[in-house]
Amino acid sequence: MRAAVWHGAKDVRVEDVPVREPGPGEVTIAVAYCGICGSDLHEYADGPHAIPVGEPHPESGVRAPIVLGHEFCGTVTGLGEGVTGLAPGDRVAVEPHYRCGTCPRCLAGEYNICRHFGFAGLMGHGGLAERATVPAYMLHRLPEAVPLEQAAVFEPAAVALHAVRRAGIREGDTVAVLGLGPIGLLVARFAARAGAGRVVAADRSPARLELARRLGAEAGDDLAEAVGGEGADVVFEAVGSQDTLRACLAATRRGGRVVFLGLTGTVSLDAFALVNNEQTIVTSVGYRDVYPELIRMVAEEGEDLAAIVTATIPLEDVVSDGFEALLRGQEQVKVLVRPGGGASGGGDGRRRP
Amino acid sequence: MRAAVWHGAKDVRVEDVPVREPGPGEVTIAVAYCGICGSDLHEYADGPHAIPVGEPHPESGVRAPIVLGHEFCGTVTGLGEGVTGLAPGDRVAVEPHYRCGTCPRCLAGEYNICRHFGFAGLMGHGGLAERATVPAYMLHRLPEAVPLEQAAVFEPAAVALHAVRRAGIREGDTVAVLGLGPIGLLVARFAARAGAGRVVAADRSPARLELARRLGAEAGDDLAEAVGGEGADVVFEAVGSQDTLRACLAATRRGGRVVFLGLTGTVSLDAFALVNNEQTIVTSVGYRDVYPELIRMVAEEGEDLAAIVTATIPLEDVVSDGFEALLRGQEQVKVLVRPGGGASGGGDGRRRP
Repeated sequence: MRAAVWHGAKDVRVEDVPVREPGPGEVTIAVAYCGICGSDLHEYADGPHAIPVGEPHPESGVRAPIVLGHEFCGTVTGLGEGVTGLAPGDRVAVEPHYRCGTCPRCLAGEYNICRHFGFAGLMGHGGLAERATVPAYMLHRLPEAVPLEQAAVFEPAAVALHAVRRAGIREGDTVAVLGLGPIGLLVARFAARAGAGRVVAADRSPARLELARRLGAEAGDDLAEAVGGEGADVVFEAVGSQDTLRACLAATRRGGRVVFLGLTGTVSLDAFALVNNEQTIVTSVGYRDVYPELIRMVAEEGEDLAAIVTATIPLEDVVSDGFEALLRGQEQVKVLVRPGGGASGGGDGRRRP
Repeated sequence: MRAAVWHGAKDVRVEDVPVREPGPGEVTIAVAYCGICGSDLHEYADGPHAIPVGEPHPESGVRAPIVLGHEFCGTVTGLGEGVTGLAPGDRVAVEPHYRCGTCPRCLAGEYNICRHFGFAGLMGHGGLAERATVPAYMLHRLPEAVPLEQAAVFEPAAVALHAVRRAGIREGDTVAVLGLGPIGLLVARFAARAGAGRVVAADRSPARLELARRLGAEAGDDLAEAVGGEGADVVFEAVGSQDTLRACLAATRRGGRVVFLGLTGTVSLDAFALVNNEQTIVTSVGYRDVYPELIRMVAEEGEDLAAIVTATIPLEDVVSDGFEALLRGQEQVKVLVRPGGGASGGGDGRRRP
């Protein structure tokens, strides 16, 4: 089969690799869509960051070269020994968190912070391929009312929904989001669903601000100015830099909360101000127990998560039209790859105009 | 009357100042006890930090020179116009937070983060004096079952209890405290009351570890080692340095919470680890709505908050036996001043042996 394989920074190759037969407890799927995530971009641009290059990951058992892609869905083609509740032909979304099942966090149901933290497609082989073989526990069977085009964005939607749950938004809260990539846009959407009275979205890109407005948020290029008043009750930091962190804290009211979604590296904080303002820093990584709710909101409420998709491309073009295009600028938001072939320039046909 | 007046760093003078007559909404009390707090020490050692030296504080209307002392209690001697519910002779504890009453946080009941944040005894005249005149809203009348020696430590106890409430401790949690000053010791005590399964206290001082043990905590000089296992559910940072912050994060489990109580200045944080471990940073400043509970636990349950008191001294000795003694070392934990006279070397006669 064809697969996009990470060999090193700026060295992702679309090449032939064997399809791995499903072992006990595993399932093979024909991948319908696989989205490109900011994490994939980081690995492409200057990785490895999360990809194991020395010791294999304890749950996946593999290390680089690795098949990238953790935002995927598809159709079951093969079942390993002992897998129940799934059959060939079932359409499934993949929740790519590995979990050991035995550490204190797994036992507490907090599998997103398992001691063997990791994702298929970063710490193990993923979905930028015609076929993917993953543990059965990662799969959620889709009802007929959920198109694969929607399930294709469940993974970033899961990140956003988990973050919104972690934030503890209360009815009527003013919620702000800085950084309108796919996660930031979906956070804005879910914050409104969670009862926020106002959702304010900020970014430097006029195109992304426009997309946020279409999703129902107020939007502006200066966060504090757009929020106004005493500051927001909850601010999501969805950029990941020292400067944007400072801007988020400045736009948060006394007693409010800042949610870190993707900060990396070391940051400096004015602890005196943080304490005197009694602000809380909440962090959110991955997701747990959110896929059923995503399925429900699409199936029962017709929620259009795929509104953030700006392009769908074939696997062979993943480097030029995927990684390189996303690194070049902000004209793309979410790029989906169709490993089975088929592409469209401006979306998947289900976008709102 | 005699009062300890802050004129500048290392320049606190016990001198004669006039008793201020209570204005409308104010009450004058004869101070029975006033504790010395870490904040007072900072102002003495290298202030001003919180003391206004330029513009007067908007609620107190005063600036330095200022009568220090915000941990005080006493007996009502005079009532200003319009004060109801209090009478001369009433014994009262002072909750020294200023509040404007009109900002969004005051209106939300979160007066500890009022836009005019401040304390009598730091941003206005306080209780290291024979008499103190304060707004009536700061006073809590004490029932007979609450001795003034207990009310003398209500202020640091309020800081600790508010922090424990902010932390959201759950039944059975492992809770750790780094730094066993008065606040750290009281946090350990209240964490146990809040349902913690284990309370682990750490400090470099053997004497303070011994005091923590007497209050019912496990104690050790290395935090992570004393906690063990996957780390604590909640860790209180009650020292306030970069190194102790790092130690607290390292002793916190994935998904756990670190509570900042007294951090000052700028700190650096490994944001990548914080996010991947999905840890929350909670901050706590001052207190709100806790004095009634402190009164109740002393009056109805015989809680001995004064167990942390190690010396009671006369006002005239506040510099030598108070500030200087506390700066010199860790043999003292909580030093109370009796402006009305009377002293004892090793406590107030109510300490446990």
